[in-house]
Amino acid sequence: MSFEFGPAHVRRIAPYQAGRPISEVAREFGLDEANIVKLASNENPLGMPESSRRAIEAALADLGRYPDSNGFELKAAIAAKYDVPMDWITLGNGSNDILELAAHALVAPGESIVYSQYSFAVYPLATQGVGARGIEVPSLNYGHDIPAMGRAIEADTKLVFIANPNNPTGTFVPAAELEAFLAQVPPQVVVVLDEAYNEYLAAELQYDSIAWVRRYPNLLVSRTMSKAYGLAGLRVGFAIAQPQLTDLLNRVRQPFNVNSLAQAAAIAALNDREFLERSAQINAAGYRQLTAGFDALGLEYVPSYGNFVLVKVGADDGAGSRVNLALLKQGIIVRPVNGYGLPQWLRISIGLPEENAAFLTALKQALAA
Amino acid sequence: MSFEFGPAHVRRIAPYQAGRPISEVAREFGLDEANIVKLASNENPLGMPESSRRAIEAALADLGRYPDSNGFELKAAIAAKYDVPMDWITLGNGSNDILELAAHALVAPGESIVYSQYSFAVYPLATQGVGARGIEVPSLNYGHDIPAMGRAIEADTKLVFIANPNNPTGTFVPAAELEAFLAQVPPQVVVVLDEAYNEYLAAELQYDSIAWVRRYPNLLVSRTMSKAYGLAGLRVGFAIAQPQLTDLLNRVRQPFNVNSLAQAAAIAALNDREFLERSAQINAAGYRQLTAGFDALGLEYVPSYGNFVLVKVGADDGAGSRVNLALLKQGIIVRPVNGYGLPQWLRISIGLPEENAAFLTALKQALAA
Repeated sequence: MSFEFGPAHVRRIAPYQAGRPISEVAREFGLDEANIVKLASNENPLGMPESSRRAIEAALADLGRYPDSNGFELKAAIAAKYDVPMDWITLGNGSNDILELAAHALVAPGESIVYSQYSFAVYPLATQGVGARGIEVPSLNYGHDIPAMGRAIEADTKLVFIANPNNPTGTFVPAAELEAFLAQVPPQVVVVLDEAYNEYLAAELQYDSIAWVRRYPNLLVSRTMSKAYGLAGLRVGFAIAQPQLTDLLNRVRQPFNVNSLAQAAAIAALNDREFLERSAQINAAGYRQLTAGFDALGLEYVPSYGNFVLVKVGADDGAGSRVNLALLKQGIIVRPVNGYGLPQWLRISIGLPEENAAFLTALKQALAA
Repeated sequence: MSFEFGPAHVRRIAPYQAGRPISEVAREFGLDEANIVKLASNENPLGMPESSRRAIEAALADLGRYPDSNGFELKAAIAAKYDVPMDWITLGNGSNDILELAAHALVAPGESIVYSQYSFAVYPLATQGVGARGIEVPSLNYGHDIPAMGRAIEADTKLVFIANPNNPTGTFVPAAELEAFLAQVPPQVVVVLDEAYNEYLAAELQYDSIAWVRRYPNLLVSRTMSKAYGLAGLRVGFAIAQPQLTDLLNRVRQPFNVNSLAQAAAIAALNDREFLERSAQINAAGYRQLTAGFDALGLEYVPSYGNFVLVKVGADDGAGSRVNLALLKQGIIVRPVNGYGLPQWLRISIGLPEENAAFLTALKQALAA
């Protein structure tokens, strides 16, 4: 053909590489699914809350109907929990959807978006998806260099993505530093504060980002139900922002982006404080278990505030791929981060105690091989 | 503020107006949800197939995990059913997602998209969403004027949307006419053939659009599981196209756009021939029931090939809204189509026999008032 379909900015996109599903690894390596340990996608090792399962059972009868396009009951639950009006809330098909909606709603082709090196892969993807120009700010100690991000904002910058805690490195920006940043960002630049891992923060590190939303019309806080809430398979995320921003996101939102069972399960999970506490506890214990194992093996890792740890498995740029393959052969799925420019590292999601133990045993063997 | 967030093309979008959920109408009109009849969103009155419900129950245990981003098993089921390779398939969060992916993947801002007057509302929305220019071709007898659409293609046209059968009017373009159109469309212009209502077509009207996909690299066939398959609440649609187009759509697709339960339920429903036959039968009987009722009331309607009927409820431009309100007060939800430029009409989804009867009784009363 003498032509190519699609704009050049789309043809340049390399799609997101997801964690490998258990079934796929079982097929490829001839393993039994029941023996595979997946610590690759920062999922909740407790699975879905029982409260959500009951809500799903109750909602099954109505699946022939379209979902509530406005998500009335889920928005009411979020509004009550965070003490914001319902028209400050945007529902997403996972927070991935929220991040893409922000890019689509706020950025025109050729304009720029600021994000950090070693931050979430969806930020550059969303940038490419709208034909915008990404400004990647060099990382500081594997985390966000917030002052440098402020300085990187250009006249045509419309959006800044900040993940706190950050994925895939697990770093954390303290509240005071974020607050100082928000106070000096130009008011026409929207800051997306992606708090996908917020629920894992220790009490003394928690901060009130919703209070900032009340103060800053250019702040959008993004949350997900896929991590601590255990609903990754259902796809629910949400954004909280003032009505002007919320209204724009809803203009580009697909009307039925959040399915009926996701809405029902999310309402139940939002109010399931016991499950959330148990998730945080098991995560904290697993973090101690994994990092003790890394210390014993003499491996460097980045101190993490999320439900995963970035660990350096070798000094050469083939190390991540090599150790990943050796782990796969033993039925352990973790996440290579070559695509992030971290070829010597692997990202390990924190699992149940026995999953963490199986991983550490397999890792020891993989490193010895 | 002296500035506005977002590009002008986004600020101009008026969001999609969904059919009103039963719970919302119950709240607003003080009615009991159990007594409300919803014939507003072209849903399957049989609900979800039992086979899908069983598949969902089996999949509940894994909801803490992310969905399979590549949808291996669902794609395998679609590939087997339509006899195409798996890399010809794109999965969508409903076919709404497919339509938007096509616009995002194939059209740059300022380029043009051709669609028909009185066709699906998502076509102009997807056009606005990417900052493209919509070329709306005047309708012929409430349906597509295919030759005129061919003539409307301009040098910068990248996409043509055709709904067959068409929503909200129910009209049908015979296979021969579509085939002639495909043979003369410039090869760099992609045709999205939206067959959301295909499964309701009588056997003698069915045509093999997948054979056309094999012949035309610029054809994309879009299907949904939200209508005859009864899975509207779960959000599953898919596209079949040759790999070059499929690859582009997957570059802008959100990695986890189709949730786990949707994938499981869709695999079951795809192979549930008995449910599909029952859905088509009950739809054909309901169509006869509704149109006999319209004939008895002396109301004009557009002969429909889908699971809904467009009926003219008055000669003045307030008729649709007036009759709609009178129906709502009686607990009957149908779809006003003012937004489509059809203020004298209402779109009635075909329900169960008793739902159709309740609607006809309420309609008679609404018209008499």
